[in-house]
Amino acid sequence: MKKAIVLLSGGIDSATALYLARKKFCPTALIFDYGQRHKKEIESAKRIAGKAGCRYKVVKVNFPREGSALLNAKMSVPTVRSLREIKKTVPSTYVPARNLIFLSIAVSFAESMKAEVVFIGAHSQDYPGYPDCRREFFDLFRKVIAFGTKYGRRLKIYVPLVDKKKSEIIKTAVRLKVPLELTWSCYKGGSAPCGICDSCFFRKRAFEELGMQDPCYA
Amino acid sequence: MKKAIVLLSGGIDSATALYLARKKFCPTALIFDYGQRHKKEIESAKRIAGKAGCRYKVVKVNFPREGSALLNAKMSVPTVRSLREIKKTVPSTYVPARNLIFLSIAVSFAESMKAEVVFIGAHSQDYPGYPDCRREFFDLFRKVIAFGTKYGRRLKIYVPLVDKKKSEIIKTAVRLKVPLELTWSCYKGGSAPCGICDSCFFRKRAFEELGMQDPCYA
Repeated sequence: MKKAIVLLSGGIDSATALYLARKKFCPTALIFDYGQRHKKEIESAKRIAGKAGCRYKVVKVNFPREGSALLNAKMSVPTVRSLREIKKTVPSTYVPARNLIFLSIAVSFAESMKAEVVFIGAHSQDYPGYPDCRREFFDLFRKVIAFGTKYGRRLKIYVPLVDKKKSEIIKTAVRLKVPLELTWSCYKGGSAPCGICDSCFFRKRAFEELGMQDPCYA
Repeated sequence: MKKAIVLLSGGIDSATALYLARKKFCPTALIFDYGQRHKKEIESAKRIAGKAGCRYKVVKVNFPREGSALLNAKMSVPTVRSLREIKKTVPSTYVPARNLIFLSIAVSFAESMKAEVVFIGAHSQDYPGYPDCRREFFDLFRKVIAFGTKYGRRLKIYVPLVDKKKSEIIKTAVRLKVPLELTWSCYKGGSAPCGICDSCFFRKRAFEELGMQDPCYA
């Protein structure tokens, strides 16, 4: 089986990307320890990789703390105001250049391990204005690696969920038997999900749309 | 003074970029500890930043060891064969996606610190076929960050040496009083420069072209 690299955060989207990847590839999950306040997601990611029977590597990266409420405990994680507001602004939970850094490191691993594909579970449908979750960003990234790396022209960047709504992703996850009970989405990383941060909001709304019980909020 | 981020490896090129940057900006140097076998360059970089009176941050990144002779002690660092051969192949000292990763992290720091410019001392003139040292790579990178980050459209990526020959860079360095005696170029990282790796070869040739004594080979 051909090799793939999958970015795995521990949330529903990346777990679904991992389960999609393993249908056709032998995936290695990259789990990033980047100073996120919800470090808990790292443990979720490890458990999900284990359940999927996939190898994983935890990669540490020093991000600057000043730039994001996800990295800086002195900044507060915003609670959901209105959908309209979420869609028109880049929230304080945005981490500068995060997907660019994660994908670049994934490309480095892919080149080194001779993997043919990098999977990322990002999606832009109902996500709060992150510039690095949009389809055009991934198109531009493909051009950079095609020119600026040794094997980049042969390496594929798959973003299978990019145009999907969260509820559609959950449907796919259920079909693929993704262990949703092991996933973690809350930005706050407390003992239980807060239920009011952007990430909890979108997750809750999607489960409600489907009329399903979220196993993490049981 | 406006802020800038400068990628500083400890070699002549990045030290020259730092001295160019400090003419008009208040630079912070980013020094990468990425498992390079010539770790010695990190100490050189710190001393150069100190001499220039600039702040620095050492950023650790886990690179995969398998992909490069610069990271893997089991692979041998190539010695110079012929200029023609160097120009037509990507050598084993190529580190997959290195400049892409370093620049992406620099952009993250720049966004977080509200710096306006990122300086990188890369050049392609007489360099051994690294795909991520060419002008077009930087042009494509600018497009990615303009679209995929919050402030990327306002952030400038300066590659002031990209079309310069090594000997021209050394001339600029001398003019700017770059402490060349503190720089380190050798890929092997021994107690003295090996004199025969690609990096030593280009450095020696450039000093010879100028009829100058290299202070590091004295």
